[in-house]
Amino acid sequence: MALIVQKYGGTSVGSPDRIQAVSDRIIETVRQGYQVAVVVSAMGKTTDNLVKLAQEITPAPNRREMDMLLSTGEQVSIALLSMALQAKGQPAISLTGAQVGIVTEAEHSRARILQVKPDRLRRHLDSGQVVVVAGFQGITHSDDLEITTLGRGGSDTSAVALAAALGAERCEIYTDVPGILTTDPRLVPQAQLLEEITANEMLELASLGAKVLHPRAVEIARNYGVPLMVLSSWSDAPGTKVLVPTPQPRSLDGLEITKAVDAVEFDSDQGKVALLRVPDRPGIAAQLFGEIGRQQVDVDLIIQSIHEGNSNDIAFTVVKNLLKQAEAVAEAIAPVLRSQPTAVEEAEVLVEKRIAKIAIAGAGMIGRPGIAANCCDLSRSRDQY
Amino acid sequence: MALIVQKYGGTSVGSPDRIQAVSDRIIETVRQGYQVAVVVSAMGKTTDNLVKLAQEITPAPNRREMDMLLSTGEQVSIALLSMALQAKGQPAISLTGAQVGIVTEAEHSRARILQVKPDRLRRHLDSGQVVVVAGFQGITHSDDLEITTLGRGGSDTSAVALAAALGAERCEIYTDVPGILTTDPRLVPQAQLLEEITANEMLELASLGAKVLHPRAVEIARNYGVPLMVLSSWSDAPGTKVLVPTPQPRSLDGLEITKAVDAVEFDSDQGKVALLRVPDRPGIAAQLFGEIGRQQVDVDLIIQSIHEGNSNDIAFTVVKNLLKQAEAVAEAIAPVLRSQPTAVEEAEVLVEKRIAKIAIAGAGMIGRPGIAANCCDLSRSRDQY
Repeated sequence: MALIVQKYGGTSVGSPDRIQAVSDRIIETVRQGYQVAVVVSAMGKTTDNLVKLAQEITPAPNRREMDMLLSTGEQVSIALLSMALQAKGQPAISLTGAQVGIVTEAEHSRARILQVKPDRLRRHLDSGQVVVVAGFQGITHSDDLEITTLGRGGSDTSAVALAAALGAERCEIYTDVPGILTTDPRLVPQAQLLEEITANEMLELASLGAKVLHPRAVEIARNYGVPLMVLSSWSDAPGTKVLVPTPQPRSLDGLEITKAVDAVEFDSDQGKVALLRVPDRPGIAAQLFGEIGRQQVDVDLIIQSIHEGNSNDIAFTVVKNLLKQAEAVAEAIAPVLRSQPTAVEEAEVLVEKRIAKIAIAGAGMIGRPGIAANCCDLSRSRDQY
Repeated sequence: MALIVQKYGGTSVGSPDRIQAVSDRIIETVRQGYQVAVVVSAMGKTTDNLVKLAQEITPAPNRREMDMLLSTGEQVSIALLSMALQAKGQPAISLTGAQVGIVTEAEHSRARILQVKPDRLRRHLDSGQVVVVAGFQGITHSDDLEITTLGRGGSDTSAVALAAALGAERCEIYTDVPGILTTDPRLVPQAQLLEEITANEMLELASLGAKVLHPRAVEIARNYGVPLMVLSSWSDAPGTKVLVPTPQPRSLDGLEITKAVDAVEFDSDQGKVALLRVPDRPGIAAQLFGEIGRQQVDVDLIIQSIHEGNSNDIAFTVVKNLLKQAEAVAEAIAPVLRSQPTAVEEAEVLVEKRIAKIAIAGAGMIGRPGIAANCCDLSRSRDQY
């Protein structure tokens, strides 16, 4: 029998009424002939309230004790959702991270999943129960049953890891938006819903701040070939499908332990043009890059640094053979900028030819500090020897 | 180094401020040279609120899921108290029932403790940490880490069981009253604080409804010779000491599994006098038993049954050779009762000579329904064979 993993976020289980609605949706999925494993977050603002409570005790709570505290939020949700399912005649059982056997690193508050033990889940699923699993939490490998939490994106990560471990047909992420949008609809009302997106595109979007799906979850989905759906828990709209490639066979041990860095790319065919002391007003950058675009000059990286006062430095890189042309445009624009009413100092153009662009790629860097430092350190070593 | 187990109830840890005060008291105990293991309840009204939440989902929640839900309350308390201790420089660690190894029966919502594993507790205590243990909860013996709760008096029971398992010097129960009082001070302002009480007297008081200490906890204290102190968490007053006998050597396995019934006592030297249709007014019973007392008749059991309307039946037993005398008093009083303004029917005296009194003794009956039924059933069998 095919299995679906469904994940419901905090808003989706934010009240007894919402939990009832979620239980109806689960029962509907069971009626369609699926086994269902469900992963839930803590109800609504529970986690925020627990964090606040800890802050009232001490501004710097111990991370192990924070995990002990925060993991209760999901435990409340799984108990209530299981009760709701049972009350409607659907056999169900709630399981904590420890009970499932979601084994993680011993890194409190940001543990990565090492392994999801499928045996107990299978046993309950095969006996006709819906299993309701606490997201965001796991235990360490030791006999001490130390409780860990997964950090940001934790419940998404739990859900996809479960789906991978169980070989689920797909993993459905229910949330309070209709799916993956082209941008944040609260800022840009014209944002469009995407029907489909590849895992790699999603990974890029997620890394750049799209909050609907955490890149950790997308990476597991991609690595293990788990099709993902992002859906609204408030409607039956079709949502967004995240397309995954057929995966290479891969061990389920060390599930979330991937290379931090997939590749380091090096490009020395770059030059930099900097405009210093540009008035800090909306529209200036658009004017500059509009003119550069009209001159058919392809801009690569753009860096804007902030000064105190009313001006910025805007720098951009182009391939070396366009550097002269780009410089000319910048020089032509500088006097215009000087005439701006808010200009306090003279805008000035600087050109730097001896630069290179180094790109470090890899979703494994997310949430792991120090990677950039390591890379810089290595390049320095190379300079020295 | 001597060890003290301290237990703090829900009111004592009801707010961040109260948790800070509790942490100060614990640190003071450590300064006095003790190792300290602490057992805490859920904060204030947490358990009530969780029960309410479950009731909003379904009027008849599954007991396993209730245990999953309710056990989060204590988990929040232990995390916060540990943070408070750590913030003051006192090494501390919180442990759930599962992490300690408080092994119980698989009876959800009313499990008895089978065993408290002392190894992990000892390890943390010997490394200089205060261990903060979640009261009221345990796990079953299976590998499934099923969470159980202990039911009424659960946290007191956890604390005394811990003290027994660790061979603690004493177990201090901190509560919101100054100690054991002779009666409920909300009803009887003259209630007196007891400086000392024996475990057996306490057991009797507790069985009869005194709520400060649960009889389960007192029974463990008595069986394993754990001195108990009942103290106010709001003051430094000396509280009440519960004196325990030197215990018989006793295995710590099956800790709370004791005989339900210690003894069945049988007394056929009894007779019953019943006054039927006594006006239901305060003072009537005092008048009746006052007169009986003046006649030097020792009354044993008193049973008052309620009729619809304005009258009661009052029955009492005496030893057989006083039956005539007791009947005479009752007959003398009956006309007085008939003259009461609220008398609606005639008071009447009945005497029953062929009765026996059976007393079933044993704290193990508490919380275990069906014992009386079993006893009745056995005696019926005896009639039949």
